[in-house]
Amino acid sequence: MEKIDSYAIFVEPFHVDFTGRIFMGVLGNHLLNAAGNHSQKRGWGIGALNETSHTWVLSRLSIEMTRMPEQFQHCTVKTWVESVMRLFTNRNFAILDSEGQPMGYARSVWAMIDLDTRRPCDLLSLYDGDILNYVVPEEDNVCPIEGHGRFSFRNAMLVRTIDTYYSDVDINGHINSIKYIEHVLDLFPREDFERGIRRFEIAYKAESYMGDRLSFLVQENEAAGGTDVEIRKNVTDGSAGDVVCQARVIFNK
Amino acid sequence: MEKIDSYAIFVEPFHVDFTGRIFMGVLGNHLLNAAGNHSQKRGWGIGALNETSHTWVLSRLSIEMTRMPEQFQHCTVKTWVESVMRLFTNRNFAILDSEGQPMGYARSVWAMIDLDTRRPCDLLSLYDGDILNYVVPEEDNVCPIEGHGRFSFRNAMLVRTIDTYYSDVDINGHINSIKYIEHVLDLFPREDFERGIRRFEIAYKAESYMGDRLSFLVQENEAAGGTDVEIRKNVTDGSAGDVVCQARVIFNK
Repeated sequence: MEKIDSYAIFVEPFHVDFTGRIFMGVLGNHLLNAAGNHSQKRGWGIGALNETSHTWVLSRLSIEMTRMPEQFQHCTVKTWVESVMRLFTNRNFAILDSEGQPMGYARSVWAMIDLDTRRPCDLLSLYDGDILNYVVPEEDNVCPIEGHGRFSFRNAMLVRTIDTYYSDVDINGHINSIKYIEHVLDLFPREDFERGIRRFEIAYKAESYMGDRLSFLVQENEAAGGTDVEIRKNVTDGSAGDVVCQARVIFNK
Repeated sequence: MEKIDSYAIFVEPFHVDFTGRIFMGVLGNHLLNAAGNHSQKRGWGIGALNETSHTWVLSRLSIEMTRMPEQFQHCTVKTWVESVMRLFTNRNFAILDSEGQPMGYARSVWAMIDLDTRRPCDLLSLYDGDILNYVVPEEDNVCPIEGHGRFSFRNAMLVRTIDTYYSDVDINGHINSIKYIEHVLDLFPREDFERGIRRFEIAYKAESYMGDRLSFLVQENEAAGGTDVEIRKNVTDGSAGDVVCQARVIFNK
């Protein structure tokens, strides 16, 4: 079976922002669908995994675009497995326009957990190491964007606290990965989106649930030329709470 | 050209709620896409209309489901024009499962506006009454759900006020029709969604914009067996503000 998969996307009217560009959260959703589709066709989809009480957990997602898909555009997401370690696998993506020209790339990191113990599994021993059959040869791993950055929050400022509701929650009862992206971007003013997003990174650290109150702390990152955002839950007067996600947003100059 | 169109939908993982049923907002989005697709193929899409400075404005949407599409299900939306009056047209929908069995129906009302004057146009004279070619014969207009209800807010209670942000806004700079549905449903507790939504209605009364603060007023509607919600903007201590939307939510018993 081919190691690289193609997944077609069409940019629907309600999936674009006021500039006509696709919302980063919607693009992220398409990437996760492309990943799910690629895994499923290779026997590693969540359906098959559930039968042995395993599931994928997304740990990191970094998307960097030179052009964002626009309303009514047809694009293609290519995705493949870059590498597999014991506890993590790296999956990369290319987003191509209808002529096959790259518009951007993405990187992601996934862990496998045991649904009963909620603990990480050894990817290399699961199903006799079958996953190694899908790692692309190095020459096919074309993903010319930087790796996932590191976060260090030293003097972040609390800028917003929100409650979470029904629409935030996925089938597992967790705040869904895409909604965090929306909530992070909602911190920024209109002018930033007129220039457009160049790079968006997110690190998922812990689950949160419907009804959790989320606090957003922001810190400029001059070295990266962007803004770092930390999402915490259970922040109270007496407690700094627990880190749920960390994100970095870099707008075009 | 066929008067009734089919539009295929697939229920993606991030498009279902914690019960595994499609979010009503996502279903609404699919219906609007089906409508856009149907219009566009008949020369009445927003692309063609923009050339003569016209556009469609959604006024009412009522969806009633006996079963909600579930994760990974393939469904079909059928849509057609029921009738055309001078200032409004009625468009209906049927949502079918993969066997062609109805899961529910929807009704919608649309006006046409002139983009320069923002005033409604006479649908019957536009393009020499071409739209009348697409009205289905009465025997094909199978939509066995009640018409749009009437709203009367007499003793509604303010239950929530929210700010609007980047993710709420569509390409026209307005809070998008689908986001209102999400915000309305976010008022209800988890238990209601365990039973599932039977019927959802919304009436769009005025536009709101990024940064507008929206107030949600709620009133039980015993006759309808549901809850009515009014969304207002610019509510202050001294003013009741302006009505933006009115919605009705009826959960299964």
